[in-house]
Amino acid sequence: MTDTPPARRAARVTLREVAERAGVSRSAVSFVMNGRTDQRLSDDVFDRVRRAADELGYRPNITAQTLRTGRSGTVALVSDFVSSTSFANSMVRGAMQELREHDTLLFTVDTQGDADLEDQLLHSLLGRNIDGVIYASMFTRTVTLPRVLEGVPTVLLNCVTVDGSIDAVVPDEIAAGRDAARMLLDHGHRDGIWFVGALPAGSRGGAAWPEWDPIALTERLAGIDQVLTAAGTTLAGVTAIDDDWDVANGRRAVSRMLAEARDAPTALVCANDALAVGAYQALHHAGLSVPADVSVIGFDGSPYARAVEPELTSIALPHIELGRQAAARLAAPGDSPRIERVPMPIRVGGSVGGPPSL
Amino acid sequence: MTDTPPARRAARVTLREVAERAGVSRSAVSFVMNGRTDQRLSDDVFDRVRRAADELGYRPNITAQTLRTGRSGTVALVSDFVSSTSFANSMVRGAMQELREHDTLLFTVDTQGDADLEDQLLHSLLGRNIDGVIYASMFTRTVTLPRVLEGVPTVLLNCVTVDGSIDAVVPDEIAAGRDAARMLLDHGHRDGIWFVGALPAGSRGGAAWPEWDPIALTERLAGIDQVLTAAGTTLAGVTAIDDDWDVANGRRAVSRMLAEARDAPTALVCANDALAVGAYQALHHAGLSVPADVSVIGFDGSPYARAVEPELTSIALPHIELGRQAAARLAAPGDSPRIERVPMPIRVGGSVGGPPSL
Repeated sequence: MTDTPPARRAARVTLREVAERAGVSRSAVSFVMNGRTDQRLSDDVFDRVRRAADELGYRPNITAQTLRTGRSGTVALVSDFVSSTSFANSMVRGAMQELREHDTLLFTVDTQGDADLEDQLLHSLLGRNIDGVIYASMFTRTVTLPRVLEGVPTVLLNCVTVDGSIDAVVPDEIAAGRDAARMLLDHGHRDGIWFVGALPAGSRGGAAWPEWDPIALTERLAGIDQVLTAAGTTLAGVTAIDDDWDVANGRRAVSRMLAEARDAPTALVCANDALAVGAYQALHHAGLSVPADVSVIGFDGSPYARAVEPELTSIALPHIELGRQAAARLAAPGDSPRIERVPMPIRVGGSVGGPPSL
Repeated sequence: MTDTPPARRAARVTLREVAERAGVSRSAVSFVMNGRTDQRLSDDVFDRVRRAADELGYRPNITAQTLRTGRSGTVALVSDFVSSTSFANSMVRGAMQELREHDTLLFTVDTQGDADLEDQLLHSLLGRNIDGVIYASMFTRTVTLPRVLEGVPTVLLNCVTVDGSIDAVVPDEIAAGRDAARMLLDHGHRDGIWFVGALPAGSRGGAAWPEWDPIALTERLAGIDQVLTAAGTTLAGVTAIDDDWDVANGRRAVSRMLAEARDAPTALVCANDALAVGAYQALHHAGLSVPADVSVIGFDGSPYARAVEPELTSIALPHIELGRQAAARLAAPGDSPRIERVPMPIRVGGSVGGPPSL
């Protein structure tokens, strides 16, 4: 915007000018503009004021409004990549829907994981009378709260601080891992269950997220282990992915595993749906069918699950519900900080059956 | 936020307090806070001011800053659903990347297609000293500019006004249609080319977008028709979809078409990638293989294209580039409004070959 000359900017229109044009009192304009519902105004007055304000280009002075009411009615969702990348951004939708119930607007900003940009954006938002912040991450992970947010009402969305001192809303990944394992045990699988999607030794993330150390991976595996251990068995194997969790890497990893494994797997639990789609392709190339020969479970509940036949059974990230609960917590904070774990629903497709030997 | 008591709001910290804590002059604080690069400040001063400001919770007064500089360094991307739904939101990423080149921050808001919410959000943004607005649509379509944006620097993104009086950036859908048809002609297809994804008679959209009348559909078909007509042929048929453009509807429509068509198609041009994935499934069920028996082209360049084997050839929506160009236009407006048509790149997969009779 460096090239926009200041001359293009109109002088601020006053409340008095709107009142004169609408033929009503200044108080009436003020009531309409501030959304006061405790004053009885006719629909006609309301319409005239709105029309006059639009025609004149009137913009209420938010700073003055905030000083008077103690709140600006606007909060911000600040994230690394949530609003600019696909899928996770339905967290924004959930937050928006909940905030409408509280008559509160939502501004969203992405920092692209850049600390300087985050600092600028937070200063820019806080200088504009934001009532609170939903601080969100695309992947579930541990974050350090930016210092500028100290003292600002904040809820963490899809992330936590190490000490748990800030309200946070995250998916219940451990329960999701347990659900995946339990479903396979219930179908008769036991000693042929593999996990697809571990990070290579020494790695903390893929090429696109080298240092993120996703909590989801650790917790999903922990949940699976809990249930298998309780049933007196363990994972038959864990297959690492070369890099990001995408279709091609899933295909490669599962092809390699099928070629190398001593015993053929009876079921694959894949770290996400894209890897599961790659697993379908590798199984197909090996002449194995889903679920007759091998059962497959994914995580995410993404559109990938519906792009394959049979549809993939997937344990879904509850993005809308996560956003909704974070917004609800910001609107009504509790007495002490807590971490809310939101259940991950099972989207049942046709990819889980009994092991072939049964 | 109705339940947040005003008492939680700290009194505004002053520039003087930051200066005292940092042990520097008030001017130095002001220079750092306003990002002035024309003043030489040591890294040490910069760090001390930033630290003191963070520790005290100082927030620069944006209104005062705007009055002084004539710009606030922040613009807004206002859309129906772009930031809260998948895929199209990479327009946000493109806009953000371009705006960083202009040292300008981006706030994003979604109106969920609700005119009242749009009005509230625009008033809220304009009351916070936004320099300009990128007004965006998830689907390419014709919009009416909200009256409150009159006089505000605005660029339309993925939409146009009827009279073309506002700068707009849209994908070049007609050229994309031409490219699809030309690729099929080049591979030897001629009289067996079907289009999959027309709206049912009398309909202007799917269940999720009942009145949107997507320009993409009309223009893609127009481009296809131009090229086929010039080659002395026409589409062998156009298949309507029951409802939204998803995998299941694509599968149903193509299965029906294969059962009913007098002559088997040699190629399918699908209105989007999800329909194309459904087409793959229908062809598979009919014992036909891609591309040996039937070639398939999609539009969008979405993750669906990589979820099938062979990978789908798709003409991609240039979302990042659309966002980037809209932001560039907002930063450097021209003398008169223009509609920029951004080329849609062809992502070549393995789904196009010659017709089986060749």
